[in-house]
Amino acid sequence: MNTIGLLHPGAMGQAVGRTLVNVGHRVLWVSDGRSAETRQRAESFTAVPSLSDLVEQVNIIVCVCPPHAAEDVAEAVIGAGFAGVYLDANAISPQKSRRIGEKMTAAAVDYVDGGIVGLPPTQRGTSWLHLSGPRAAEIAALFAAGPLEVNVLDKQIGRASALKMCFAANTKGTTALLSAILGAAAEMGVQEALEEQWAQYDPEFPEKTRERVARNAHQKAWRFVGEMEEMVETFGSAGIPNGFFSAAADVYRRTAHFKNAPDQPDAAEVIEALKNDQ
Amino acid sequence: MNTIGLLHPGAMGQAVGRTLVNVGHRVLWVSDGRSAETRQRAESFTAVPSLSDLVEQVNIIVCVCPPHAAEDVAEAVIGAGFAGVYLDANAISPQKSRRIGEKMTAAAVDYVDGGIVGLPPTQRGTSWLHLSGPRAAEIAALFAAGPLEVNVLDKQIGRASALKMCFAANTKGTTALLSAILGAAAEMGVQEALEEQWAQYDPEFPEKTRERVARNAHQKAWRFVGEMEEMVETFGSAGIPNGFFSAAADVYRRTAHFKNAPDQPDAAEVIEALKNDQ
Repeated sequence: MNTIGLLHPGAMGQAVGRTLVNVGHRVLWVSDGRSAETRQRAESFTAVPSLSDLVEQVNIIVCVCPPHAAEDVAEAVIGAGFAGVYLDANAISPQKSRRIGEKMTAAAVDYVDGGIVGLPPTQRGTSWLHLSGPRAAEIAALFAAGPLEVNVLDKQIGRASALKMCFAANTKGTTALLSAILGAAAEMGVQEALEEQWAQYDPEFPEKTRERVARNAHQKAWRFVGEMEEMVETFGSAGIPNGFFSAAADVYRRTAHFKNAPDQPDAAEVIEALKNDQ
Repeated sequence: MNTIGLLHPGAMGQAVGRTLVNVGHRVLWVSDGRSAETRQRAESFTAVPSLSDLVEQVNIIVCVCPPHAAEDVAEAVIGAGFAGVYLDANAISPQKSRRIGEKMTAAAVDYVDGGIVGLPPTQRGTSWLHLSGPRAAEIAALFAAGPLEVNVLDKQIGRASALKMCFAANTKGTTALLSAILGAAAEMGVQEALEEQWAQYDPEFPEKTRERVARNAHQKAWRFVGEMEEMVETFGSAGIPNGFFSAAADVYRRTAHFKNAPDQPDAAEVIEALKNDQ
């Protein structure tokens, strides 16, 4: 069993960390500066005060953080003198993953590219960790007994991130598109008529769509902004039209302030917020 | 029963015209310059050589044409000296519909805004004609006994077009998004892995998606380009992020050349075409 560093776990990262603890690994995390709520949820991990303390004690680091923070976290790990295997499991473009990988390689760290699809893992068949890179199989082995399904793609850095981007482009891109449609329909006075037309095809679609739009705005939209910007780079670099994702980033930016709402907002509140470029 | 002019019927327009003929109306169309295939499909209508001939014989005109042509057709009708009720049933922005309406009103033509959702009408419950405008109810009455479901929204020009835009933004916008995703996945070498991940959620989704992408490229993408540009104006004017639709227009522009393919292309051919900005 291994001692593994976990950076900087939110809901998904903590769930991934718990799957490691549950199969017998020891998981360290850096607790300084994290909220009381995060500390409470991380109680099954061993807290160390600083990144320097963490890198001294582990030879594997797993990074699960919002996409906009991934490059800074990686540079901090290099700066702290880490030597070992580093998994970036974040929703970043393959281009960014390769940039991080090059820096890691230059610092003699073994870099593994990763991407997580699905819910925070609690049972098999609901969450997948896709991996690519020369040492991907070693990372895969860590999770073998747990509920997170692990899929090693190949040795090429960027493949796992490419897959994650394409998968999330559909789920989060479609939600953003539907949000924009409800926003435009409301602004033009045809939301009710649109929902009636939708219901002709699927009676549940209007309510499901409103719920999906509201759920994604609440406590999620703020971090989807960065993920959509990663897709802009991903699709643009592949030579494919990428304006879907700059528009989706705008949608999530306009609803990012629901991050701190105690309860899920009504769809009507989210739709109203979409009209305004704040 | 009425004598109605029908401009410039493709597959949808002809089906709409046949519903009028089937309930007893006489439908005139301008046959000059149309293909032999179109003439054959229009055999249940009365052909007149020119627009001038048509406007002399009818007091109702129904226009079903590609969105980029709608304004030119309307201006030609005004130029030909039409006096009567004019229905624009095209997939255009409410802004364009209002512009056309203002020109019609200035020329003493009664303008009705319309939008068609669904398949070419052959049975009830599969196609809807949404109408708005002061004289919408008179147009609705023409279709009362046929298979096309007619829905009068209100008296405000632009409402029917707004509804059509919002409905098609989901169907055609999502298809464009999925096309882009398959194109990016193929370019990055993860199409198979993506389809396997999709299949974990819905085993039929990969094949359905490939079929949807291929079906929309064949003989449809060329006219979706203009429709996506109408959505750019519609959403932009409503103050809602609209980059989804400029990207979707790009997707359809890259596959527009499948217009003349005798058979539906393979999804792989469409995906390949998406990589290149032609």
